[in-house]
Amino acid sequence: MHKITTAEEAQAFIDRFDTFLFDCDGVLWQGKHVLDGVCETMDILRAKGKRLLFVTNNSTKSRAEYVEKFKSLGLTATEDEIFSSAYASAYYIKNLLKLPADKKVYAFGEGGLRTELEAEGIQVRGIDEDNDPINFDTLHTIKPNPEIGAVVMGFDADLTYRKYARAFTYLYHNPECTFIATNEDATYPIGGTVYPGAGALISPIITALGREPLYMGKPQQTMLDCIMLKYHLDKEKTCMVGDRINTDILFGINGGLSTLLVLTGVTTKESEAEASEIQAEYLANSLGDLYHLTK
Amino acid sequence: MHKITTAEEAQAFIDRFDTFLFDCDGVLWQGKHVLDGVCETMDILRAKGKRLLFVTNNSTKSRAEYVEKFKSLGLTATEDEIFSSAYASAYYIKNLLKLPADKKVYAFGEGGLRTELEAEGIQVRGIDEDNDPINFDTLHTIKPNPEIGAVVMGFDADLTYRKYARAFTYLYHNPECTFIATNEDATYPIGGTVYPGAGALISPIITALGREPLYMGKPQQTMLDCIMLKYHLDKEKTCMVGDRINTDILFGINGGLSTLLVLTGVTTKESEAEASEIQAEYLANSLGDLYHLTK
Repeated sequence: MHKITTAEEAQAFIDRFDTFLFDCDGVLWQGKHVLDGVCETMDILRAKGKRLLFVTNNSTKSRAEYVEKFKSLGLTATEDEIFSSAYASAYYIKNLLKLPADKKVYAFGEGGLRTELEAEGIQVRGIDEDNDPINFDTLHTIKPNPEIGAVVMGFDADLTYRKYARAFTYLYHNPECTFIATNEDATYPIGGTVYPGAGALISPIITALGREPLYMGKPQQTMLDCIMLKYHLDKEKTCMVGDRINTDILFGINGGLSTLLVLTGVTTKESEAEASEIQAEYLANSLGDLYHLTK
Repeated sequence: MHKITTAEEAQAFIDRFDTFLFDCDGVLWQGKHVLDGVCETMDILRAKGKRLLFVTNNSTKSRAEYVEKFKSLGLTATEDEIFSSAYASAYYIKNLLKLPADKKVYAFGEGGLRTELEAEGIQVRGIDEDNDPINFDTLHTIKPNPEIGAVVMGFDADLTYRKYARAFTYLYHNPECTFIATNEDATYPIGGTVYPGAGALISPIITALGREPLYMGKPQQTMLDCIMLKYHLDKEKTCMVGDRINTDILFGINGGLSTLLVLTGVTTKESEAEASEIQAEYLANSLGDLYHLTK
């Protein structure tokens, strides 16, 4: 692990790559606060003609909503630079799974997931439709539906048993129906603590089916397959920047990318980074160091 | 495995035991239809002074509601003969866990679970209280609560993310808080098909916590511990009657009871019973055979 501590090291790091993939929370910001020097580092990279891509496991927002979030924090990003697990799901279904146009997707998630699926021309059922509870007497009205070619599940704060029963029924009675999950993060960090995450909310279907989904998000490689197909990146000249060793750094290593671990999020100590079995190629105290060291 | 096919075998089987534990669905009835000869078999056993106990993993009904269900099907049972996983949870918390009176239970489940907990004098939170969804902006209002001494989870058709967030938060921030699940059945059979069961609906909390609950229901032994404490049965003279090898029969074997497998529910073929690693002591085509063979 090379620790970036001097202007020369920072410069050499920047010069080595054409493309930087950034995790967002814990790298660019923490909750609602942009981290020191991040805005300036992004300006430096853009000025040098680097491609920046923002790669997040969060499936609740559309890319347009992410652009608004960047703007509200004083950062700049375009929709084309955002790769969320919701968009990855839509991109995958359209371009890799190549779901036939007459098939529909049953989606369990937030509005951002529906937006991204529909933007790819996919017919969506589920989100906003099954928010009412259901009782034993009407459960039989949920029946197999061969029109549903894939079930996509992500974080859903409006989850209901009706939704679980539908997702399960479409998958259980049709082995051809593809089971996709946005991400496997078991907890969702918010306000300094954690709550059950997408990976937890998906587990009733895994348990009832006895079958695992295809995960889009980090550390799984499907999102990277989508990114490579869309942008045709040179892996030798691409670096994944993240704060989570088990997701971000593993994602980069497994994908054959270089990796930079920053200590502004989940991983906060150099000793933790050193003790881990998974070793990032580069280490920096913060992304902002690339600006502070070279200014 | 002794197959009961003659009057002598049926008589010897009945005479050997003082107490019969019966699974309900697939043994006494199928859906809304009582199985042939069951009513008469129950009459014979009662006339001989046998104790009958009805042991079900279903946590949605109170014992009083079960008595009504028996009555509606033309069968007789008293509340004292019913041992459901909801009642077992309440009995366990009161008599084995001995939860202090100032502690509360957060319950995720149906009304029958609340009824049984309250009947044991336990203060209940959750059921009927957290049916509204919650959004990211208000999630922080769900905070740890040291008053919650146990979280009990069962089947809940009115589940919400608010409920999951509460159950998780009480357990995650308090390792002293006991995590109890009514049963681990991953699917719930209804109307000739299956839907996600209690074991599936509990799994978000297991996944998010990385911690398993104490299961009350079959094949786990906690419900049997409760039954033994309440009725002081002689295990040598007690037989568990069921249709599911992996739950009912395993429950009986692990508990040191005799077992009778009937082929009127999940297991329908003698060849399946013979091929299983788990071998019931007795086999009969149906519970009604005890009447038909001896009449």
